[in-house]
Amino acid sequence: MNSNYKVVKFRSNNSKEVDDQISIEEPLEIILKHRDKENWIENTLSITMRTPGDDDDLVTGFLFNERVIEKINHIESIVVSGDPVGQYKLHNKIVVTINNSENVDIDKIKRNFLTNSSCGVCGKTSLESLEIIKKDKIIKSLPKIHHGIIMKSPNILRQNQSEFSKTGGIHASGLFNASGEIVAVKEDVGRHNALDKLIGYVLKNKLLDNSSQFLTCSGRLNFDLVQKALMANIGVLIGVGAPTSLAIDLSNKFNMTLVGFVKESGFNIYSNSERIIIEN
Amino acid sequence: MNSNYKVVKFRSNNSKEVDDQISIEEPLEIILKHRDKENWIENTLSITMRTPGDDDDLVTGFLFNERVIEKINHIESIVVSGDPVGQYKLHNKIVVTINNSENVDIDKIKRNFLTNSSCGVCGKTSLESLEIIKKDKIIKSLPKIHHGIIMKSPNILRQNQSEFSKTGGIHASGLFNASGEIVAVKEDVGRHNALDKLIGYVLKNKLLDNSSQFLTCSGRLNFDLVQKALMANIGVLIGVGAPTSLAIDLSNKFNMTLVGFVKESGFNIYSNSERIIIEN
Repeated sequence: MNSNYKVVKFRSNNSKEVDDQISIEEPLEIILKHRDKENWIENTLSITMRTPGDDDDLVTGFLFNERVIEKINHIESIVVSGDPVGQYKLHNKIVVTINNSENVDIDKIKRNFLTNSSCGVCGKTSLESLEIIKKDKIIKSLPKIHHGIIMKSPNILRQNQSEFSKTGGIHASGLFNASGEIVAVKEDVGRHNALDKLIGYVLKNKLLDNSSQFLTCSGRLNFDLVQKALMANIGVLIGVGAPTSLAIDLSNKFNMTLVGFVKESGFNIYSNSERIIIEN
Repeated sequence: MNSNYKVVKFRSNNSKEVDDQISIEEPLEIILKHRDKENWIENTLSITMRTPGDDDDLVTGFLFNERVIEKINHIESIVVSGDPVGQYKLHNKIVVTINNSENVDIDKIKRNFLTNSSCGVCGKTSLESLEIIKKDKIIKSLPKIHHGIIMKSPNILRQNQSEFSKTGGIHASGLFNASGEIVAVKEDVGRHNALDKLIGYVLKNKLLDNSSQFLTCSGRLNFDLVQKALMANIGVLIGVGAPTSLAIDLSNKFNMTLVGFVKESGFNIYSNSERIIIEN
């Protein structure tokens, strides 16, 4: 499932605004329902950021792969809950009914699902709940970044990675100044961890200057990276890969400039393009 | 941080075993400590799969970016807990002490961190806890896959993706038979979701035949993809990107064949290479 977004494409020293198709990312809350004697019990099992479509397959596979159920015929039904929500009119809640309470160990599940937040989703159920948390996080800084600096930043990031050349398999986040010099870089197998490490490091060492700096990250740009950059009030987030719909929506709402698909030959601007200086 | 692993590299119709450097992936349990009147209270906040190193930066950035703390000077100390564990003798538990209980809203945190499992980590704290869960999951099936089939599978996967050509930003997982024909493919912005959707779909439709089929996934091979493939008892997992240390360790322990960096010109085998038929 995808949707059209306005994108400023910069190629061969020319920029133009075009429509582009973007993969949709939306939260799905999975609610587990079972009978305890006479009563029906519902527990929120998980919230995952997913591309809508095949939600019943997703839930079936998730419950089986995470050993919530031993066999898929322990599922009696999978039905969406509530009214369609948001700009895409989607059901973002789904209720799975287990056919026999003996087939589900709720205490074990609660223990296993109690603590996990490595994706940065952290129990937030919607873009709306995020907005409430962050109304003070609207980006006010106005770094201005030259197009040439943007196109060079992924190479500089890679040159400053100590691990990538050895393993070919580690993500990085780098903080740059407006001249394109790297302020700090951190690496991790988890994209979100690399950004947490970087922001932790620059906050501790008082290296963050929101008025002029920008972030470049390896890989794709999804919800959690934009969220983390917003919390540090960084105005320009650049990624080597594609953004999701939710990443673009968030960057628009909080006045961040989001740039994706950065190569030496060009890039795409998804929001607030006024921070990017394009000169021929 | 990385470590050496034995890898069978197949290039130009020749295979040889070499040492290769692999990025380490290990769980980190973040424990939040604060004083409630006379008592010290500890709560496990999160378990994240990370590359060891800069753990204090990771924890600082994570707490700030997820709004557990408003300012980094609310942290009094960050210290590792217990003895070093596992093959790399690492501290995989870290305790963050908050300097003033007024600076942390434990009830809000519990609500926010209660339900999240989208990475498949799900509160499991170690490889050991995973082993207990899955001692029945040792792969017994012996699909034999020809090297040519492996090298073609990423292209076939991409040709069968409905969304990738439109957005350039969506992951996919595909189930293939030993002849290299695709059985099913599912897409999602989350790599782990694509695999959950695929396994849910093939289980529901009784399309899974562990004796002869294999999986090919876009992107990197980390803990959660291997874990999910193991749950479905699939003997061969193939990825376009790099594996992590934990992915290789898991595949070895459970007798799965793990293949990474697949291109049209070659691939790397990280475990149980006897399932791959290499013919000149």
